[in-house]
Amino acid sequence: MLLPLGVITELQALLGDRFSMAKAVRDQHGRDESPYPELAPDAVVFVQTNEEVACVVKLCNEHHVPVVAYGAGSSLEGHVLPIHGGICLDLSQMNAILEISPDDFLVTVQAGVLRKQPNQEIKDQGLFFPVDPGTDASIGGMCATRASGTNAVRYGTMRENVVALTVVTSAGATIRVGSRARKSSAGYDLTRLFIGSEGTLGIIIEITLKLYPLPEGISAATCIFPSVSAAVQAVIAIIQYGIPIARVELVDETAITAINRYAKLSLQEKPTLFFEFHGSPLGVQEQAENTQSICSEFDGSGFEWSANPEDRTRLWQARHNAYYACLQMQAGARILNTDICVPISKLAYCIDRARDMLNQSHLKSAILGHVGDGNFHALIIIDPNRAEDIQEAERLNRLIVQDALSVGGTCTGEHGVGMHKIQFMLEEHGADAIECMRAIKAVFDPNNILNPGKMLPAPPL
Amino acid sequence: MLLPLGVITELQALLGDRFSMAKAVRDQHGRDESPYPELAPDAVVFVQTNEEVACVVKLCNEHHVPVVAYGAGSSLEGHVLPIHGGICLDLSQMNAILEISPDDFLVTVQAGVLRKQPNQEIKDQGLFFPVDPGTDASIGGMCATRASGTNAVRYGTMRENVVALTVVTSAGATIRVGSRARKSSAGYDLTRLFIGSEGTLGIIIEITLKLYPLPEGISAATCIFPSVSAAVQAVIAIIQYGIPIARVELVDETAITAINRYAKLSLQEKPTLFFEFHGSPLGVQEQAENTQSICSEFDGSGFEWSANPEDRTRLWQARHNAYYACLQMQAGARILNTDICVPISKLAYCIDRARDMLNQSHLKSAILGHVGDGNFHALIIIDPNRAEDIQEAERLNRLIVQDALSVGGTCTGEHGVGMHKIQFMLEEHGADAIECMRAIKAVFDPNNILNPGKMLPAPPL
Repeated sequence: MLLPLGVITELQALLGDRFSMAKAVRDQHGRDESPYPELAPDAVVFVQTNEEVACVVKLCNEHHVPVVAYGAGSSLEGHVLPIHGGICLDLSQMNAILEISPDDFLVTVQAGVLRKQPNQEIKDQGLFFPVDPGTDASIGGMCATRASGTNAVRYGTMRENVVALTVVTSAGATIRVGSRARKSSAGYDLTRLFIGSEGTLGIIIEITLKLYPLPEGISAATCIFPSVSAAVQAVIAIIQYGIPIARVELVDETAITAINRYAKLSLQEKPTLFFEFHGSPLGVQEQAENTQSICSEFDGSGFEWSANPEDRTRLWQARHNAYYACLQMQAGARILNTDICVPISKLAYCIDRARDMLNQSHLKSAILGHVGDGNFHALIIIDPNRAEDIQEAERLNRLIVQDALSVGGTCTGEHGVGMHKIQFMLEEHGADAIECMRAIKAVFDPNNILNPGKMLPAPPL
Repeated sequence: MLLPLGVITELQALLGDRFSMAKAVRDQHGRDESPYPELAPDAVVFVQTNEEVACVVKLCNEHHVPVVAYGAGSSLEGHVLPIHGGICLDLSQMNAILEISPDDFLVTVQAGVLRKQPNQEIKDQGLFFPVDPGTDASIGGMCATRASGTNAVRYGTMRENVVALTVVTSAGATIRVGSRARKSSAGYDLTRLFIGSEGTLGIIIEITLKLYPLPEGISAATCIFPSVSAAVQAVIAIIQYGIPIARVELVDETAITAINRYAKLSLQEKPTLFFEFHGSPLGVQEQAENTQSICSEFDGSGFEWSANPEDRTRLWQARHNAYYACLQMQAGARILNTDICVPISKLAYCIDRARDMLNQSHLKSAILGHVGDGNFHALIIIDPNRAEDIQEAERLNRLIVQDALSVGGTCTGEHGVGMHKIQFMLEEHGADAIECMRAIKAVFDPNNILNPGKMLPAPPL
């Protein structure tokens, strides 16, 4: 779009050289970690205060100019691509930790704070924030996509770990939703409505997060299984037994092969579970021992565990390297990352089906799973310049999503909808629920300026 | 209101003798556990199927007749009173457990199922549903009020424990929100929007709940403290230490006095904490021992603990009797129950302030607290026929809520807004957030037929 001159003038007056239409700056904000081609916004604003955010949004609303919030640019589904042009609202300079309240187990941060930053500042107080998507995403972005990571099985996702938000509405009002209380029954849950709204209902600018005590004891373990199914059955039994696993990650044989090549290791190329246990020193030993005995009932072998930090790092090394190892499977590759989440009893079925379909494809791939949640990723390796790769990866993704929906699951466990999952929204939710979502969108953003074209399918003509 | 004849005729045709305008039936549905005077609906319908609910709501919407959902009638804030008349939709006959999925740790129930019922049916499978408001409420009602109970500190509230809902909208459409996956990033969180919406956005008819493994070991403990403040400080330290307490309840000295009288016990009349620990047999022993050593740092004394079921029951007997003991403090009494929830570091301050104000009142009272959540109840004993009692209890409630709001808390931790907390909504949320809630209400219920007059303050003229 052509930005109205009035908007340009006012933004320049408001922000000085923190308003930019330079090509390099725009290009930098025209991509995320998805394989979508670059698409630059018309201008980028680097906001520093709540008032600036409110002014920018109000101005854009008056002129019907789209506004796309931008944190770390690490979204995976094209969330930040300005498909209708407009302003990229870069929140990365709003990166202050506003208040740490150790006795309340709360921290309040600005939206541009990256997820590792609070953990650096609070670890001396014996606390941590658990949600850990693979990348060092912004907390605002993690709220917007309802992100999670490897330890949601124990600590929950962003949905469970935010108590309050400050949000700028499309009209430029600044509202606070939630409170500092850990629970409340006072009115509609606006906090949860903004969490996962992908910048389409308001701009999240401040977040109050729950903190947890750093566990006194941590132990890690790995175990090899003859099949994905055996590994998943073991995890179900472990949860049924009541072992409060903090992390349980599945790495399939193709991913192990990639890791062996990447990190020059010689791990057995079999489905492998990686565990982490949090608790008292005695407790994490007991958890590991009980886990070992359950794993052996499901033909798990080569069980190794340790509470020693160096050994833990060594045991988990393969899992930590998995994403990069997969990227290295092919020069110049990018990854199309599927993200279905299913009832845990259907996880082995869905992974086995996915593996069969992937094996029949010309594309390389690997599977990583957050087994405790029923969420797994097929990392499909593509050459982003080959149309047939993209087409094939999309075909596989669609088949994998169909399987998830057929067993009562979801097309996205933690990455969000963005541009990429819109095609599944109607089938997943049904026409009436989508109509509810559209009505909410219309109420919160009547001029459709907030990240337009994302998440919701276009209404029927 | 006078029910339109067309509505009466159609409901009779649809439901036969499950449509009633008999005074006894109407009166029975005209009260809850609040001290509000009775207010009968114009008619009661006893629905048995999803289709019947949809038909009733659709019909009422067409005729602009209010519909108030009714489960067990155990709400505490006048939620079910039909203040604008209309139809009481009694869901108590929709009480089937529809599907138990032990491997998915899920159970699907109809809205009229009472909370203890699924636990009876699943305990043989080694599973349980943890959310436990004091009474045997309906699961639908617990969703509608975003209820919790004594073990939210470990297992969360209804907000965290529902994965999917089936809801009838005001237009009579039946929509399914959420999925059977434990987490999802696919679109707006309609599930959380209906949870806590108190029957004002739709009628919840089916609920899919998370289940947890029955802990292999359970231990209970009690400890006496010189002051409420010392008890709360001990709990903060216990959480900081990482002890995963399943329950921690505070009973203040006045409540202990009432219990001694009620149950002919001779407990020390001091602030007392009641603990429960879930884990492995070894783990619950360690938790109890560590808790004891932390309690003693905060002048806790008389620490007793046991993993033996009979001893556990004896230790917790006082807490279990607390509500009834308080009701017995005065003949013919009813209780006005406050419900603030505050950041935990402010809990001792708020309880001490409440105790001071209560001590200066002519009304008897006792305080019970879900300390781990920062939530406490002042049980204010009133004679419901004495206007000055009601006035005084309301004055005290307002002062206690003011304190909560001044420290960033909420007017209701788990009971909901109903009629009684409407007065605090504007101050707690601010005008812009209330405007958002009103806009959502207007979208979901354009004719304002769903539990009208509840939760949201009337808009300014």
